[in-house]
Amino acid sequence: MKIIIVGAYGTLGQAVAAELGRDNEIVKVGRSRGDHKADLKDDGSVRRMLEAIGPVDAIISTTGSVHFGPLSGMSAAQFNEGLQDKLLGQVRLALLGQHYLNDGGSITLTTGIIAQHPIKDGVNAMAVNTALEGFVHAASTEMPGRRINAVSPTVLTESLPSYGPYFPGFESVPAGRAALAFRRSVQGVESGRVYRVW
Amino acid sequence: MKIIIVGAYGTLGQAVAAELGRDNEIVKVGRSRGDHKADLKDDGSVRRMLEAIGPVDAIISTTGSVHFGPLSGMSAAQFNEGLQDKLLGQVRLALLGQHYLNDGGSITLTTGIIAQHPIKDGVNAMAVNTALEGFVHAASTEMPGRRINAVSPTVLTESLPSYGPYFPGFESVPAGRAALAFRRSVQGVESGRVYRVW
Repeated sequence: MKIIIVGAYGTLGQAVAAELGRDNEIVKVGRSRGDHKADLKDDGSVRRMLEAIGPVDAIISTTGSVHFGPLSGMSAAQFNEGLQDKLLGQVRLALLGQHYLNDGGSITLTTGIIAQHPIKDGVNAMAVNTALEGFVHAASTEMPGRRINAVSPTVLTESLPSYGPYFPGFESVPAGRAALAFRRSVQGVESGRVYRVW
Repeated sequence: MKIIIVGAYGTLGQAVAAELGRDNEIVKVGRSRGDHKADLKDDGSVRRMLEAIGPVDAIISTTGSVHFGPLSGMSAAQFNEGLQDKLLGQVRLALLGQHYLNDGGSITLTTGIIAQHPIKDGVNAMAVNTALEGFVHAASTEMPGRRINAVSPTVLTESLPSYGPYFPGFESVPAGRAALAFRRSVQGVESGRVYRVW
């Protein structure tokens, strides 16, 4: 299969590229480096990337940031940061990418454990992750012959030095284990599913 | 109790105002009419409304629109319409309104059955509604002494003439029944809950 991975240079993206790269042709996309570059906040940038690569069997996103901070001081503009980046960025990739998928192709987005389990300062993250899960559920009903899923990892073991304090008592998983869920989405048969890796 | 209802002139808002108006002081807010006016897409407009009314015991929103349309032709800009209106509009009201709540006060937002049950053309609606439910869940963990919930009605009986075709086989509920859930949120003890009226 020919597979696009957007966010291929992040902690998760590298693991997904390594896992799926064993037996697939991987096209690595980053914001500032990669086989191709794309900014998920820009329609034109995403469209140019897709057009340059051409039809593929799978599109994967392992990227997106949200605003972390206390509710008491949060502005609507800060809340909108996560809506525009991790949520709308990945949705934009799916909306444009659906037209570049071969028959039987799939899209796999990344959400996270905060969709179900709130953490300190995680209001924006929770709303963004739940929205992505809702998007995947609804979108799957309108993609005959193609599939869309999401992978929801808990905190990655590799990320504990920076994010560990936000996840007290949470078990971490190695990025390589989370990467398996992407293989399951890409090579499996289900659609509209969220694969939780916790 | 002194209660702000934003969206007080919509089908649901009128029913909520009638229900809670039996034994509370209601401040009706609409975009273009009401005791006070506010545009939930504008920080300044919402802040001026809250400042003019002063401290209250409950803030209710029964407003917000989303984009309806097929996934195959949807643009990121169209998807963003619902993010900016029904989602961020209500979130903005909560973010600013939290500072105008009396001790023990509450915020109640409106989501909808499409959070769990996709309908035709409802991709944006599903993402927006799930995000609101995630927001309420997370925000409730950061509001000591105050509460936040959401009400999720199915299609309203009063709205069947216009929205009925989107909800084939769904049972409708009268707006007055959905309004009871707002009373339960305002006068109850729970926080971070979604009251489903289906």
